[in-house]
Amino acid sequence: MKPAATRTRIEGVLAPVITPFRRDLAPDPDRFVRHCRWLMRSGCAGLAVFGTNSEANSLSVEEKLELLEALVKAGIPASVLMPGTGACALPDAVAMTREAVRLGCAGVLMLPPFYYKGVSDEGLARFFSEVIERVGDERLRLYLYHIPAVSGVPISAELIERLLDRYPGIVAGAKDSSGDWQNTRAWLERFAERGFDVFPGSEAFLLQGMRAGAKGCISATANINPGAIDRVFRNWRSPEAEKLQAAIAATRAIVQKVPMIPALKAVTAHFANDPEWRRVRPPLVELAAEQQRQVITELKAVGFSMPGL
Amino acid sequence: MKPAATRTRIEGVLAPVITPFRRDLAPDPDRFVRHCRWLMRSGCAGLAVFGTNSEANSLSVEEKLELLEALVKAGIPASVLMPGTGACALPDAVAMTREAVRLGCAGVLMLPPFYYKGVSDEGLARFFSEVIERVGDERLRLYLYHIPAVSGVPISAELIERLLDRYPGIVAGAKDSSGDWQNTRAWLERFAERGFDVFPGSEAFLLQGMRAGAKGCISATANINPGAIDRVFRNWRSPEAEKLQAAIAATRAIVQKVPMIPALKAVTAHFANDPEWRRVRPPLVELAAEQQRQVITELKAVGFSMPGL
Repeated sequence: MKPAATRTRIEGVLAPVITPFRRDLAPDPDRFVRHCRWLMRSGCAGLAVFGTNSEANSLSVEEKLELLEALVKAGIPASVLMPGTGACALPDAVAMTREAVRLGCAGVLMLPPFYYKGVSDEGLARFFSEVIERVGDERLRLYLYHIPAVSGVPISAELIERLLDRYPGIVAGAKDSSGDWQNTRAWLERFAERGFDVFPGSEAFLLQGMRAGAKGCISATANINPGAIDRVFRNWRSPEAEKLQAAIAATRAIVQKVPMIPALKAVTAHFANDPEWRRVRPPLVELAAEQQRQVITELKAVGFSMPGL
Repeated sequence: MKPAATRTRIEGVLAPVITPFRRDLAPDPDRFVRHCRWLMRSGCAGLAVFGTNSEANSLSVEEKLELLEALVKAGIPASVLMPGTGACALPDAVAMTREAVRLGCAGVLMLPPFYYKGVSDEGLARFFSEVIERVGDERLRLYLYHIPAVSGVPISAELIERLLDRYPGIVAGAKDSSGDWQNTRAWLERFAERGFDVFPGSEAFLLQGMRAGAKGCISATANINPGAIDRVFRNWRSPEAEKLQAAIAATRAIVQKVPMIPALKAVTAHFANDPEWRRVRPPLVELAAEQQRQVITELKAVGFSMPGL
């Protein structure tokens, strides 16, 4: 495969979009599309659908493909989409990635195969290489998804180096959800000049990330607070930046006191006045009533809202 | 759902059957059937296809359903099959489990959903309950698969208690691959009388397991050493038992010095004189040549063979 031609890459605030479920636990494409539209008009530059916060691994490949199709049919431009396409099984990762490229998505955000632990960089490189070769399309922009506390399978700098050497232009960047700023900084220093775009996995690192060369962030709380997070992204060079960063960190801190995914859904349910949004798929469980009251009360106390939801 | 009627449960040595791959990494049903036949005539009482050692999570649902169908079409009785049907996504676990029940399999061996870590027993109970309810068939025999070092999601005694209370007869037992004999013993003491059949996940615990009420074992090395392991199962009350146990432990110790799954495949490749068997799917990698030489040399030194392969 030839090196891919340079083209504009996605930058800014991306939301790992939460996935609504009906009473029978089936995904709800209508609510999904509505939430995606709200996110796009509220500050998000892109939609990292099918991430950890999307309960993506609790969805079958078919369910994800249907939701992706629903978004595109609803007029959401594929150029703002960065679907999660990683999977434990090579054919699943290939099927998802192939469809994302066919639709013209901005990129794909790929978990490593996450069942076996302690696997080698050689094994992971073979996995990602097989996906790239089988998709076989220079339009592919592959972002590596590093979230070791959940996946149990870290992405090492050596693995990035190896993949960048082999697929420059196609291996386009990473989301770093390690929560370890030293790791994010090390990647920025080592790889940013090679066209490898690093997105911290939390807006807690957005300002320091931008100062060090990050391209935005992909953060859970962008689901509920996209506008304020986008203001930090757009104004990181301004004298206001520290204050804006402190505000989004304060909001995040409130939500982080309870389990994140059900919290995002409970907050969305509250501000959309739509209790259906609370539902999660097992093995997750909804926020307890007391936890939900606490989060909502604390968010209101700092003036938080979700305007236009 | 009513409590299921009593019927004979599978007991003995089960192999988590290794999965052969062709050059293009597609599963190879012919070699798979051949190996299953060899296992069944060499001492295995059952075939726990689609386990950890089968690289099952590296296969798509469709690939697994095709392999299962190939076995049944080839005349392997469904009554000896205990396919792995666990998955991160509820619809995948339901699809696999439903088909296993429809075919008349002895049971299913279910991993918990293993992407999210630190999930609650409530969330896991909801997951397993949803699968049982959606399959909705009293013929289902569900064995819980506890392999925390790989899955990252342990099965607690409290979860077992809760599921046994709700689905007696259907929740039929567990494979304990914790490698922690205290855990296996605790489960036997607490649950064996309730019709909950415990299988240690390694033949290292077979003799002490049988003495404490286990029903056999489901072990990686049953792929290559089924006859000797079965002799321990059949003769655990005999004066020879300790000696037979020591022999299978010695064989296991040799294989355990290197990565288990590629080792099982390399040993099979050697004794079948069929190098195709060495192949694994990424993220696993084949045994290095030196490792393979070491394992084969040491196995031959203790008189190991795979007669009739």
